[in-house]
Amino acid sequence: MDNYISERKDGSFKFTSNQNFHFESGASINPLELVYDTYGTLNEDKSNAIVVHHALSTGSHLAATEKNTHTGWWNDMVGSGRALDTDKYFIICINNLGSCYGSSGPLTINPETSQPYGADFPDVTVEDMVRSQKMLIDFFGIKQLHAVLGGSMGAMLSVMWLVLYPDHARHLISISSCAQGYPANHANRLIQKEIIQQDADWNNGHYTNSSQLQGFKIARKHGLLTYRNWTEINERFVGKQGRESIDNYLDYNAQKFVNRFDCNCYLRLIEAMDRFDLTESGTRQLDDVFRSIKARTLVISADSDVLFTPPQQEELYEALLLAGVKVDYIEHHTNYGHDAFLVEVDEFSSYIQAFIEAV
Amino acid sequence: MDNYISERKDGSFKFTSNQNFHFESGASINPLELVYDTYGTLNEDKSNAIVVHHALSTGSHLAATEKNTHTGWWNDMVGSGRALDTDKYFIICINNLGSCYGSSGPLTINPETSQPYGADFPDVTVEDMVRSQKMLIDFFGIKQLHAVLGGSMGAMLSVMWLVLYPDHARHLISISSCAQGYPANHANRLIQKEIIQQDADWNNGHYTNSSQLQGFKIARKHGLLTYRNWTEINERFVGKQGRESIDNYLDYNAQKFVNRFDCNCYLRLIEAMDRFDLTESGTRQLDDVFRSIKARTLVISADSDVLFTPPQQEELYEALLLAGVKVDYIEHHTNYGHDAFLVEVDEFSSYIQAFIEAV
Repeated sequence: MDNYISERKDGSFKFTSNQNFHFESGASINPLELVYDTYGTLNEDKSNAIVVHHALSTGSHLAATEKNTHTGWWNDMVGSGRALDTDKYFIICINNLGSCYGSSGPLTINPETSQPYGADFPDVTVEDMVRSQKMLIDFFGIKQLHAVLGGSMGAMLSVMWLVLYPDHARHLISISSCAQGYPANHANRLIQKEIIQQDADWNNGHYTNSSQLQGFKIARKHGLLTYRNWTEINERFVGKQGRESIDNYLDYNAQKFVNRFDCNCYLRLIEAMDRFDLTESGTRQLDDVFRSIKARTLVISADSDVLFTPPQQEELYEALLLAGVKVDYIEHHTNYGHDAFLVEVDEFSSYIQAFIEAV
Repeated sequence: MDNYISERKDGSFKFTSNQNFHFESGASINPLELVYDTYGTLNEDKSNAIVVHHALSTGSHLAATEKNTHTGWWNDMVGSGRALDTDKYFIICINNLGSCYGSSGPLTINPETSQPYGADFPDVTVEDMVRSQKMLIDFFGIKQLHAVLGGSMGAMLSVMWLVLYPDHARHLISISSCAQGYPANHANRLIQKEIIQQDADWNNGHYTNSSQLQGFKIARKHGLLTYRNWTEINERFVGKQGRESIDNYLDYNAQKFVNRFDCNCYLRLIEAMDRFDLTESGTRQLDDVFRSIKARTLVISADSDVLFTPPQQEELYEALLLAGVKVDYIEHHTNYGHDAFLVEVDEFSSYIQAFIEAV
């Protein structure tokens, strides 16, 4: 069989393709594996599917299920009567290519060496991720999604989906994302990469234990500070124990992250974000890129987001508008910065539900 | 002689004290040396002196002179007819204790070993810096300053001056500073320290060449990104070469900095800022700390400053107000973030001139 699906112990699934998967870089892997979770039931005419794209640090586990009772990364967004209503929709969340939660990536065994690819795993782009996921959706026989949506890096995939397959979804929601990385995004990723690469234990990606890489841990602390607005951080850690508390907060969360994430995967993914540029280095106009999109679209920005700043959201919105695409814009007022969509799930549920339910 | 002054080739001066100088930590050094520059002439009754406190990365060279034609860090602020008017005032700028521009610090030769103190130089506090500078001002025979002012870390010294010597200046201006570091300040310094200390070449401060420390350079890149608002960075580096431009900008400026600054000095100074807390870990009220201040005071904040955020400026202002001190507040509107006072010198000249000239 070229393509097949198997169920995993935790109730998630693995899609395997034994055709060569070609990356934009020219490299290829075989097999390609994608791990995904589904919630709800695909209806008979296969018209009720929604693809949710996860961000940098999470995976396909959106919400707790009977077989996997761990709280999902958007747990309260998904379920009977919730915004992503499992009574109506068939929700699919696929672990991104290059990540470390089951899909092909640096942790995958390279069949040629019987060792993990590690630092030798090909460079990945957002387009690579989307093309790989489309293979699975085609395998399901789904001709058009009800919606495709995501936050942060996830929304890069959602937008790219419609750029590559303009007629393939009826709704698109981009949350706290962009049409291209801006210089400050790039600079922050550059610093994180340099912190990681300067660590002698990183050893050009040929390290022995990702969870013990001090550079990786410091880079994650740096990342954590960009996901929130500093005003919120100051308010949260106020008081005489504030300095100690934030030390502990950063140390605890950065260690927790490096315990569960792989450093080479992290580098592949932040590099993919760094390459994401729908203008292709300014050689094409965004409105030209979007002109064929048939979906109704919604751009949501968080006004205190210092990472994917409101001007980046406005650029995306205005290009969609100029392209003649149906587009709405919500500027969400929050103190939680880039993380708002993961924290204020009630508000984002309202935005999403109202949009995907409207006829 | 216990205390004496010598002129240096570049027109700056060195104050030497052969008494033991005791740090808050309990450590002491002997001699204590302070390098300083002066502009204008001290009048007969010694009533026209202004102390300007420099920030983290600069020194005593405020403005170009005949003997030292290099542009100073506040070049257009100082001179005949300018805000710090050399026709009227005697301007003194002293290199902070612990820094690397001539005053006692890690680069100073330890007389006991005939080697630079390096990592063995005592921990420094803002109070240590101010007490050392007060010795020089006393040596001049100046009983009361016309004004004491500074930006960023410099203003920590200016405010501390009045906390220690409440009747010793007629005007105080604090620009883009605070009464205490907030958690996000601390977290950013923590990350910089960890980046530096993780570098094997740092070698617990016993490195061979500060300018070749990659960790120090990366830490400076991190710092550079906090001195500006990311919106400004995005606008400045806009366009298809934006990513490459910001790489080059950070690389060039971070290398330039590590070529001219010493890593142990940098650590001493950021640690001093980190310890600056006029509430003494919440054990005293700011308004009690300020109650004896006799000066007219002015707090200037930059509205896009993400490092010393407006709430920190407001805390300082409100405590002064509550303490019954005469205080004004200017919220400067700018895109330049924390660096605004170094960039928009015309506007800051107006603020300063109007304030120190008023009767």
